[in-house]
Amino acid sequence: MSYNKIHINPISPEPTVGSVLVIYTGGTLGMVYEAKDRQLVPFNFDQIIDRVPEIGRLNFDITFLSLTEPIDSSNMNPEIWIELATIIEQEYAAHDSFVILHGTDTMAYTASALGFLLENLNKPVILTGAQLPIGVARSDARENVITALELAAAKNELGQPIISEVCIYFNSLLLRGNRSKKRESSDFNAFHSENYPVLANAGVRIEYNFPYIQSQVQGLPLQVQKNIDNHVAFLKMFPGISPLVVNSLLNIKGLKGIVLETYGAGNATTAPWFLDAISDAIARNIIIFNVSQCDGGRVAQGHYETSRFLKQAGVVSGSDITAEAAITKMMYVFGKETDPKKCAEMLATPLRGEMSI
Amino acid sequence: MSYNKIHINPISPEPTVGSVLVIYTGGTLGMVYEAKDRQLVPFNFDQIIDRVPEIGRLNFDITFLSLTEPIDSSNMNPEIWIELATIIEQEYAAHDSFVILHGTDTMAYTASALGFLLENLNKPVILTGAQLPIGVARSDARENVITALELAAAKNELGQPIISEVCIYFNSLLLRGNRSKKRESSDFNAFHSENYPVLANAGVRIEYNFPYIQSQVQGLPLQVQKNIDNHVAFLKMFPGISPLVVNSLLNIKGLKGIVLETYGAGNATTAPWFLDAISDAIARNIIIFNVSQCDGGRVAQGHYETSRFLKQAGVVSGSDITAEAAITKMMYVFGKETDPKKCAEMLATPLRGEMSI
Amino acid sequence: MSYNKIHINPISPEPTVGSVLVIYTGGTLGMVYEAKDRQLVPFNFDQIIDRVPEIGRLNFDITFLSLTEPIDSSNMNPEIWIELATIIEQEYAAHDSFVILHGTDTMAYTASALGFLLENLNKPVILTGAQLPIGVARSDARENVITALELAAAKNELGQPIISEVCIYFNSLLLRGNRSKKRESSDFNAFHSENYPVLANAGVRIEYNFPYIQSQVQGLPLQVQKNIDNHVAFLKMFPGISPLVVNSLLNIKGLKGIVLETYGAGNATTAPWFLDAISDAIARNIIIFNVSQCDGGRVAQGHYETSRFLKQAGVVSGSDITAEAAITKMMYVFGKETDPKKCAEMLATPLRGEMSI
Amino acid sequence: MSYNKIHINPISPEPTVGSVLVIYTGGTLGMVYEAKDRQLVPFNFDQIIDRVPEIGRLNFDITFLSLTEPIDSSNMNPEIWIELATIIEQEYAAHDSFVILHGTDTMAYTASALGFLLENLNKPVILTGAQLPIGVARSDARENVITALELAAAKNELGQPIISEVCIYFNSLLLRGNRSKKRESSDFNAFHSENYPVLANAGVRIEYNFPYIQSQVQGLPLQVQKNIDNHVAFLKMFPGISPLVVNSLLNIKGLKGIVLETYGAGNATTAPWFLDAISDAIARNIIIFNVSQCDGGRVAQGHYETSRFLKQAGVVSGSDITAEAAITKMMYVFGKETDPKKCAEMLATPLRGEMSI
Repeated sequence: MSYNKIHINPISPEPTVGSVLVIYTGGTLGMVYEAKDRQLVPFNFDQIIDRVPEIGRLNFDITFLSLTEPIDSSNMNPEIWIELATIIEQEYAAHDSFVILHGTDTMAYTASALGFLLENLNKPVILTGAQLPIGVARSDARENVITALELAAAKNELGQPIISEVCIYFNSLLLRGNRSKKRESSDFNAFHSENYPVLANAGVRIEYNFPYIQSQVQGLPLQVQKNIDNHVAFLKMFPGISPLVVNSLLNIKGLKGIVLETYGAGNATTAPWFLDAISDAIARNIIIFNVSQCDGGRVAQGHYETSRFLKQAGVVSGSDITAEAAITKMMYVFGKETDPKKCAEMLATPLRGEMSI
Repeated sequence: MSYNKIHINPISPEPTVGSVLVIYTGGTLGMVYEAKDRQLVPFNFDQIIDRVPEIGRLNFDITFLSLTEPIDSSNMNPEIWIELATIIEQEYAAHDSFVILHGTDTMAYTASALGFLLENLNKPVILTGAQLPIGVARSDARENVITALELAAAKNELGQPIISEVCIYFNSLLLRGNRSKKRESSDFNAFHSENYPVLANAGVRIEYNFPYIQSQVQGLPLQVQKNIDNHVAFLKMFPGISPLVVNSLLNIKGLKGIVLETYGAGNATTAPWFLDAISDAIARNIIIFNVSQCDGGRVAQGHYETSRFLKQAGVVSGSDITAEAAITKMMYVFGKETDPKKCAEMLATPLRGEMSI
Repeated sequence: MSYNKIHINPISPEPTVGSVLVIYTGGTLGMVYEAKDRQLVPFNFDQIIDRVPEIGRLNFDITFLSLTEPIDSSNMNPEIWIELATIIEQEYAAHDSFVILHGTDTMAYTASALGFLLENLNKPVILTGAQLPIGVARSDARENVITALELAAAKNELGQPIISEVCIYFNSLLLRGNRSKKRESSDFNAFHSENYPVLANAGVRIEYNFPYIQSQVQGLPLQVQKNIDNHVAFLKMFPGISPLVVNSLLNIKGLKGIVLETYGAGNATTAPWFLDAISDAIARNIIIFNVSQCDGGRVAQGHYETSRFLKQAGVVSGSDITAEAAITKMMYVFGKETDPKKCAEMLATPLRGEMSI
Repeated sequence: MSYNKIHINPISPEPTVGSVLVIYTGGTLGMVYEAKDRQLVPFNFDQIIDRVPEIGRLNFDITFLSLTEPIDSSNMNPEIWIELATIIEQEYAAHDSFVILHGTDTMAYTASALGFLLENLNKPVILTGAQLPIGVARSDARENVITALELAAAKNELGQPIISEVCIYFNSLLLRGNRSKKRESSDFNAFHSENYPVLANAGVRIEYNFPYIQSQVQGLPLQVQKNIDNHVAFLKMFPGISPLVVNSLLNIKGLKGIVLETYGAGNATTAPWFLDAISDAIARNIIIFNVSQCDGGRVAQGHYETSRFLKQAGVVSGSDITAEAAITKMMYVFGKETDPKKCAEMLATPLRGEMSI
């Protein structure tokens, strides 16, 4: 792989503290209006530094690296996740922290995926982006980038990074990546973490919520998982869902797992045809991962009659995981492990703080 | 159809004003712990009145009607929606308003569906339920039922009902039914309407948000649509989604429409195989209805490159509709109309305030 | 009065639409770190344009005017309110709208005061500021200024300004000025309007809440009230408050009115000494204006025994007015009217949408 | 003191676990409509048990004790605070936990005061109340009482109470008492804690926020402070405040301290007359306690020029304390300690988690 790399010499008179690698993947943040038909298109990341001169005044080293082909985040895919994880692996020793500029649309998916792929991570990886392009007068791009940089560079009294997990920073809030969801497509406060507290709030000061920030993993070297298996799909319940729909999905060729989007605390219809279809799939070693359509609360299989059957059939409870983290966790687990029983165990266990026990 | 009916003679000394029909369908609200294995099971609705003696003190007539077979809302289905709409049709002249006691899990789906089925409705239909059973000491059931009854009975100075649409009342908030979502599976404030204001807030007083409440439909008689067509499915985008998944869904036998759950403002991957699959389905008269995975904001097809292709392919924009309203609207529209072009037009047009233009 | 004035020639190639006058009063937004002891001090407003080059790209005329002596908003006072109102009066014909850059600390007081002083206003007056200085890398200053300018310049299809009242714009929210409160001293979302809806939300688009925006005053010319009477004070109730405190306040020389900060829905102790002190003050033509310590809800005198006495004694109900609007309304009313009975009537009546009836 | 006491024999077949003393002080919760003029008046607490039969089904011992003369909370005063603290002292050995039924208006003041008076507390003291009387059909009273009882009785695996501090429970939220504020006078969600996280959320389950709950005080016996000194007052800043107002307050006979309600992060006018008045008061051993008018954030004296003077003059910073906790803390401190220097130190130091350092 070869990438465009730009090193920014901070103009701050004080000596610099630490080094941040910024990886530009594309997305609204770096978009401009095309001259010919006023359509928004990605622009060359070199312009970011022109648009946000304040970056040059920060007292730490910054290196910019751009994907050779920046993409809109709607086109994000597992290959690029592995590419990003590999860049971090290669640059891990050379930098203290990482900021990824990413489109908002799939940022929660990417943050979840990177969290799984980067095993034993103990440096900050902060994703950020913007709802409006940096090329427009009114925009959230500049503030998001600067604050993400400051968060990435933040150290405690011992000189260790305060954050050592994959996070999303957006519109004043620092969130655990695999707990995040893009909730708003228009508002600047686009991201939300319904089942896990905010890790930091950036106002006049940056206020950290220390009890909920992951402590550093000690002793183990970073290990990057580079295999992802996408033989997965969502199956979202709704009243009136027909056997045709369910069976069609459960019989996709090569399918290994389904994220079943259930009602409330993990409930689904108890119609015999449905339970039969689920049991049959499980018998064929397809894993069914039970995730709620509700943002808040958790799957509690067995509490109601309507979820007891799922538990009995061998459906794996997703507790309070997001749909985004669930589908990426499945792809990671299937890429790492082939035994269905072990896969089910991994899915049921919190690996990166993505679900509560 | 035959139902259990109980008439409650209000004990209030003042003459009663108006008449409310309460329809019990099942759900947590009316659940009790089974003696043998402490599993929650539906109970006979006659007990509701024992549990909430205050109901007897309200100054309006209340008639209770129970579905012959109460069901958990996870088992809710279009047949029962038609049954409910038919009951309202039959009892429309005899009552001023309707309260439906319903499980929370699919309440947003049912509220959306009833809103479509009940054409020219001009009386209140308020759905409510509870997160904890009425048979438990700590429970939200009692307050939700009483307030729903008061909202159903509320009249303006002209003696007309203040509300004349299908709503959900839950935990102090009155929401437009087809704008509602169950967001929380554990908290009492379970329902939310992200893209449309709250219609009323019940505190010390009930404060109405008059500019956003639908005004009465005048002159037209209630008409009930009794045909629903469930040849529909959800297709939720995620990075890594494979052609196998997409094609399997789009080739379900008899499929008439798909609610495509896109990213952000209606974006999806621009991979050629995906656009081909979508175009091919549209060529086969399958309607693709573009709804965002984000609760807030709206689909703006064509704004970004990644949604322009969807627009060009003939995908129908769902604007700011909820997934729940989108899938039920499809079933209603396909039940009413066979011409795909007319169906697409109806889907693109707000029919009951379920989407913004 | 003479002021520094700078005219900015927009570089936009399209013809400009409208003209905005920006008045800089001082405050955090325009602060920089003093070289010698790193204390924040106000800076010369000319630098604002250097810091926010995007302003030059907007397609409307902008004139900057700075108070000769910029002040921290903690030093804001009625003389400057009159100065600001007078500037707007003098520049009213020459500009379509006005943006006032103001410290956050007393912005809600100033917005309330200007709303009263500017009688028959039918052009936008938008106050904004920042929690962090424009001279700091991480700052909300730039976004707040740009969006306030865009809101001030916004016109409807008829070419009329969308807003024609005094507002505060801060951190995505446009609020009615006299309904605003600084709720947060650290967060960027500093301002809040608990008893009146947000007028607009600035995200990807600016979404207006039209039913709640004041419609244009027609036919009447702007009239500026230039007299303010500050013989007023706050009296905040608390359990244990002593007669010494109450009597000392009510016997201030020349006192004309008190904003009585009561509990809940307008309640205070019914201790005889307290009611006597209040009655005695009212007998001496001191007006007592009842405002709640609660941000939300309203004073409903007479509902509880503990507020009935206040009503009987002649205390004026402030309904759901903020403390900030209440004290400035008193100063305006006493400056305009001398008859205590008329003053009480004006206080009890919504003059600029500052309270509900 | 003699009080009405009622012991409730739980009808639960299982053996009871623990014993709760419920103290009824008056307030909306226990109000009924008077027959003659429909005014709300306090009722005899014996009726509470008739209104909430579920209380009899809880599996712990409950003893009800009523103040001889129930009062509306607007009439709450330091004498009753001492009475309540004394009751808890006398009943401390006999009960595992305490629930105080209290009017909402001054509940935050009482919760703050009791927190200070009850030194070395290590049992739960939960205050609750209601926005609507228990005698009305639609009411929050029943749920608030039942949940407060369950929270008071809750134990961890070691059999120790989960909570061992003074809290307010209201509308699903358990808040630290001295961090609470009545924010809403109409909504059911009346209480709020802006600067400290919610301690527990009661939904389908009760979810505790363990890192923020105070751990048990070990080894020290409960000690009750029975002296309160109310030579205190609020002085709220506003633009236009006159020397007459400030001097009148600062010269109240016997005054020991002032809660100065400043702007934002603790700022006030730098007008010489004001600084002189403050300095003069401090020279006379009057303590000035700097508390912000903003609910959120904290006083940071010295950060801005406008607060530096206050610091230099010897004003005590209140950090992020509420006005309610500040004024009660002053009364407690002045009741306990006479040396102004020691008082100032106590005020500046968190005593019960009421402020951050």
